[in-house]
Amino acid sequence: MPRVARVHRLDAAGPSDLTALDAAVATGRIDPARVVAVLGKTEGNGCVNDFTRGYATESFTQWFAARLALAPAEVERRVVMVMSGGTEGCLAPHWLVFEEIDSAGAPAALPRLAIGAAATRELLPEEIGRAAHVAAVRDAVLVGMQRAGIARADDVHYVQVKCPLLTKPRIHAAGTRGQTVATEDTYKSMAYSRGASALGVAAAVDEVPDVTVEQLGAAVCRDPSLYSRRASTSAGIELMDNQVLVLGNSMQWGGDLRIAHRVMQDAIDLGAVQGVLSDLGFGVAAQLGARDRERLVAVLAKAEPSRTAVIRGARHTMLDDSDIQATRHARAAVGGVIAAMVGETRLFVSGGAEHQGPDGGGPVAVIARERVDAVR
Amino acid sequence: MPRVARVHRLDAAGPSDLTALDAAVATGRIDPARVVAVLGKTEGNGCVNDFTRGYATESFTQWFAARLALAPAEVERRVVMVMSGGTEGCLAPHWLVFEEIDSAGAPAALPRLAIGAAATRELLPEEIGRAAHVAAVRDAVLVGMQRAGIARADDVHYVQVKCPLLTKPRIHAAGTRGQTVATEDTYKSMAYSRGASALGVAAAVDEVPDVTVEQLGAAVCRDPSLYSRRASTSAGIELMDNQVLVLGNSMQWGGDLRIAHRVMQDAIDLGAVQGVLSDLGFGVAAQLGARDRERLVAVLAKAEPSRTAVIRGARHTMLDDSDIQATRHARAAVGGVIAAMVGETRLFVSGGAEHQGPDGGGPVAVIARERVDAVR
Amino acid sequence: MPRVARVHRLDAAGPSDLTALDAAVATGRIDPARVVAVLGKTEGNGCVNDFTRGYATESFTQWFAARLALAPAEVERRVVMVMSGGTEGCLAPHWLVFEEIDSAGAPAALPRLAIGAAATRELLPEEIGRAAHVAAVRDAVLVGMQRAGIARADDVHYVQVKCPLLTKPRIHAAGTRGQTVATEDTYKSMAYSRGASALGVAAAVDEVPDVTVEQLGAAVCRDPSLYSRRASTSAGIELMDNQVLVLGNSMQWGGDLRIAHRVMQDAIDLGAVQGVLSDLGFGVAAQLGARDRERLVAVLAKAEPSRTAVIRGARHTMLDDSDIQATRHARAAVGGVIAAMVGETRLFVSGGAEHQGPDGGGPVAVIARERVDAVR
Amino acid sequence: MPRVARVHRLDAAGPSDLTALDAAVATGRIDPARVVAVLGKTEGNGCVNDFTRGYATESFTQWFAARLALAPAEVERRVVMVMSGGTEGCLAPHWLVFEEIDSAGAPAALPRLAIGAAATRELLPEEIGRAAHVAAVRDAVLVGMQRAGIARADDVHYVQVKCPLLTKPRIHAAGTRGQTVATEDTYKSMAYSRGASALGVAAAVDEVPDVTVEQLGAAVCRDPSLYSRRASTSAGIELMDNQVLVLGNSMQWGGDLRIAHRVMQDAIDLGAVQGVLSDLGFGVAAQLGARDRERLVAVLAKAEPSRTAVIRGARHTMLDDSDIQATRHARAAVGGVIAAMVGETRLFVSGGAEHQGPDGGGPVAVIARERVDAVR
Repeated sequence: MPRVARVHRLDAAGPSDLTALDAAVATGRIDPARVVAVLGKTEGNGCVNDFTRGYATESFTQWFAARLALAPAEVERRVVMVMSGGTEGCLAPHWLVFEEIDSAGAPAALPRLAIGAAATRELLPEEIGRAAHVAAVRDAVLVGMQRAGIARADDVHYVQVKCPLLTKPRIHAAGTRGQTVATEDTYKSMAYSRGASALGVAAAVDEVPDVTVEQLGAAVCRDPSLYSRRASTSAGIELMDNQVLVLGNSMQWGGDLRIAHRVMQDAIDLGAVQGVLSDLGFGVAAQLGARDRERLVAVLAKAEPSRTAVIRGARHTMLDDSDIQATRHARAAVGGVIAAMVGETRLFVSGGAEHQGPDGGGPVAVIARERVDAVR
Repeated sequence: MPRVARVHRLDAAGPSDLTALDAAVATGRIDPARVVAVLGKTEGNGCVNDFTRGYATESFTQWFAARLALAPAEVERRVVMVMSGGTEGCLAPHWLVFEEIDSAGAPAALPRLAIGAAATRELLPEEIGRAAHVAAVRDAVLVGMQRAGIARADDVHYVQVKCPLLTKPRIHAAGTRGQTVATEDTYKSMAYSRGASALGVAAAVDEVPDVTVEQLGAAVCRDPSLYSRRASTSAGIELMDNQVLVLGNSMQWGGDLRIAHRVMQDAIDLGAVQGVLSDLGFGVAAQLGARDRERLVAVLAKAEPSRTAVIRGARHTMLDDSDIQATRHARAAVGGVIAAMVGETRLFVSGGAEHQGPDGGGPVAVIARERVDAVR
Repeated sequence: MPRVARVHRLDAAGPSDLTALDAAVATGRIDPARVVAVLGKTEGNGCVNDFTRGYATESFTQWFAARLALAPAEVERRVVMVMSGGTEGCLAPHWLVFEEIDSAGAPAALPRLAIGAAATRELLPEEIGRAAHVAAVRDAVLVGMQRAGIARADDVHYVQVKCPLLTKPRIHAAGTRGQTVATEDTYKSMAYSRGASALGVAAAVDEVPDVTVEQLGAAVCRDPSLYSRRASTSAGIELMDNQVLVLGNSMQWGGDLRIAHRVMQDAIDLGAVQGVLSDLGFGVAAQLGARDRERLVAVLAKAEPSRTAVIRGARHTMLDDSDIQATRHARAAVGGVIAAMVGETRLFVSGGAEHQGPDGGGPVAVIARERVDAVR
Repeated sequence: MPRVARVHRLDAAGPSDLTALDAAVATGRIDPARVVAVLGKTEGNGCVNDFTRGYATESFTQWFAARLALAPAEVERRVVMVMSGGTEGCLAPHWLVFEEIDSAGAPAALPRLAIGAAATRELLPEEIGRAAHVAAVRDAVLVGMQRAGIARADDVHYVQVKCPLLTKPRIHAAGTRGQTVATEDTYKSMAYSRGASALGVAAAVDEVPDVTVEQLGAAVCRDPSLYSRRASTSAGIELMDNQVLVLGNSMQWGGDLRIAHRVMQDAIDLGAVQGVLSDLGFGVAAQLGARDRERLVAVLAKAEPSRTAVIRGARHTMLDDSDIQATRHARAAVGGVIAAMVGETRLFVSGGAEHQGPDGGGPVAVIARERVDAVR
């Protein structure tokens, strides 16, 4: 009996607005007990003082706690919640709610969207952003694949990681044990943690075949030529472990959803967007029409300004703008590029793409419903 | 003997960087005496305290004054200079330099890019943003068309207007004559001036056929259903007249450049971008390749957040973001959409699109070299 | 048997950080059941998309609900909560928690800090920002004074009002009844609501003696010469009534707290700050020292950029800065001015001061403990 | 025959507005040929993409070139021009123009404001931010002191340094010679350069008596306990030497101006402001009145957020605000603190205070006219 993954894209009128979620439950479209993950695009600045992420997480936690009669801590263990701040340009705030359903139906004839969650042990502060971090995430991704019933790395298309960061007390705690940390700059520690997590994903899905974990640890935030094509990682202050959500395709799952991914080589790489849509059977000579958009369930991408400060030879000003953070510019640009093709602005475009795709580019993954004529 | 229009897109390393211009003169590609207009995309915020526009204008004025042995005021009368601030997202700062050359060659067999500059009389403060303003710009556009040798409104594809705004002293001066002004809010007066100028263009090129100038004056910033499909207007403090630059196609001009335009219906209207490119003979099933990009000389577009606060039914947050001005978001989004198709980031995307296209959308014009096989 | 007001200034490490509150309860310093109001300074932008206010309010609501076994709606009726966003410059995020305690002690020989909360009826959308709004707030302030046991207007020193704003649906609802609203611009409706509320306070405490409520309603956002010297008002989307918190001195209250106020005539009016401190017995020839600061319990002030764009004849750039909202500049400036004298940065400086003090200035109130030698 | 220093504080309506300068020349108050330095406070963001500094410098250069019939490069050698961006909060854009005049009068009985300009040799990229940089600035300050006729370090009260920064080509040039640079991060190189320059000042005026130049070089951006109490340094891309302006008091100068300084220990150190005013004979129990303000010619201060993220034990949010750069917050706060006491907003408060005062604090210098009764 196959499992079935359901993915719901819900509008958000604000970081605490769960009215669409309430409505989906009221009409039976969502069963709170079956939700395994929530990804949210919230309208903060996506940088240090973005409290929309915490506000949204808190709102969802309270919601699940009330609906399922659980303590907040139990909700956190049960549902992976990753909030990404920043809806610059045309981007729309929204929630992506992932359910795992037991299905009475026959298995699909083709691989279907599969979900696997896992977590690492709690890291020590001195491990964050280093080889031990890479190894822990690699192992958790492998567990997540197993739980998802995905045997081949090629069938993994997107791995979301929520990873820890360093704070002054954590650095101090390491110091009292005679240990140094990857960086004493707490803001930079987010980049180190995201980078190590991404390289852990890369190691798990065979993207860096001849590189040891120790070498990967040494490459974090140093060698941008090493990167994952499926990782999307974000750091948060509220955890010391790493939460991993593996998305791929598997014959063990039914339903009508499928996922694919490509890598944007730079911020305006429309070809990659067209490629991933083609992989899922969409025509891409023009923007998706209304019927195609109904099949489009979720778009997940990473955005980052190129450190070379150029795109195709022309200067960009994202890195030199002291009024708007560079990641805000990058999300706006990539949001425009993707929306151009898909005709839809509820896109999970997130920033901070260390070792997630090449410099200035990033992975783009799409979850879509199969065309009726393709469902054999 | 036909005239020939030449258009040069030059990189700008900053708002006063004219090294690319120097180089073009040194190699004979540009003749300073033939330059009739400069449009610049500078890297300020494009809003009130954007001094990159004035800095760039001052730099060009000094440059022409030195090269042509003219007083600065003479330069201003000779060369139309319009600087648009804001290179958000992927956009690249650059200059577009327009030359008018006498050609010894035979006329082209097809209409070619034609340029016509004109100016209105100096307006009184109480005229700004009202019917008299609409009428003055309408008449100047007609003069510009005549100078460009464009007989039919359909052959006009882009009209840039630089228009005045109200200041406290100007409002006071009107008051001492017993006159009221369109608005006492100096910032809003920019919108009124841009709007009236755009409706003046609309009147000149038959876009609002059954509407009188008085009705247009009354509609400024009130009735968004009336708009021009070719106007791009910007307000500046340094003038009381209106400077008009008409771009279109005419049999009286030679060379190999042609212009076309479409109207984006919203911020992510890729179809309009594909349409204008198709009009110029480009294939648009995929992003333009390197050879096509060589033909692409200039892209000119207006961007604006929709006042409905939605795009295709999904909420945007541009109007509610108190950290980033809405026009900055809009330029970033539209820049991404256009760059997605043309594979190029030196795009003249400007904000403040009152009566320039429908709410949330705007005109997009492209100047391109003819394909060799199309040059008969 | 007198009542006693207690005021606690608690550090906030973030908009949901209530650890200082937990600690105060654990040590018996605060009794949750006695809390009547919370004012919070949170670290958002204080403008439209400042979600730190809602996040803080939600956090407090959940906290009280859990501590007092109440439904969230009951908490809202029981505790006045006003969050003011924006801790620019030196300002520190903090909470001010107001308790009302029954005292077994003898009444004080001098008037002591008195607290009175009240609410208006729910307004109709068409009433917001108009005479009916002014009248409703005036009446609620009079009720608040009565509850506080303050008979004379001169004994009122600070009135906080939380007032409603217009939304598109509310404007629409008015329209279906054939009614117009004060402004169709939802952002501006906040200013109208704050202004009408402030004039309601002014009417209640005899600050505009010869002006009728109808005249006050007509003056909202039009005649800045009419203003309150004690009002601090802020608009929120979550209510249609007006919540009023009256602070003054009364012989009916005991304890050792007293409140005083002055009006800053412009952003750098140190004399007003020195004046209010002198009223409370502080020496002001130099910054308050450590012992004096222990007596200082709360500082409450309004800040606003002058619309003349000058301060003492010199230009300020707050109104023309399209990168930073003017109210953010104003809070930073006034925060610096007050901190200079009091040597303390946990100051409740809030923006949006329509009809709250003269143009560019605003009220400043201080709550302080009596000096031991002054407690007879 | 003594020299006389004149200092003019002129209003600026924008970064290129020299109308007050024109007026001062027209009325004979300023002689362009006698101007030795211009310090300007311009209204940009004071960070990377602040083009108001370059725009102002360019405007002054053109102005002097026209007035004195000099080439722009000659103007730059003749007049020290330092523009500091950022007029946050109450601060007013303004120019400070320094003249050196030959006087026919008798010397003053007391030391008077003395000015001495000097420049270092051009540094190699690999020297910037290191011991060689410290040594070069130290030597230039000593030359400046000599030219100013200041023999004792105690008579130096303010040293402005304009210093170079690293760019990618400069780093590359060092690399081709087999040399490394202090930092490969070009933005950080500004901090290194400012820091080394400040320590060079400290070495010249005996503020770090037992520390060698090599030790100072090693301490740059590493040991904040080493700092100057008189230095104000800013980095610019346009030079490779260091321009130094020494201000102090000397018996060799006449006129009625005097300078003094103190060090603010943190952002709200009113005592330091009162101290420096007392040193110049002002009463400080209240804000300076109109007559005192007439004596006040210039106020020069540095501002910086404390890296501890606290002020007097309370948290500040300047370092965590991803919407507004920390230096902008700091200028607004310190501007408010100083304006509170002096009642004037034309204050030269600049950011980026590495090794210029203690962490979170900075030097504050005041130039004032002697009181008539003090002029013996």
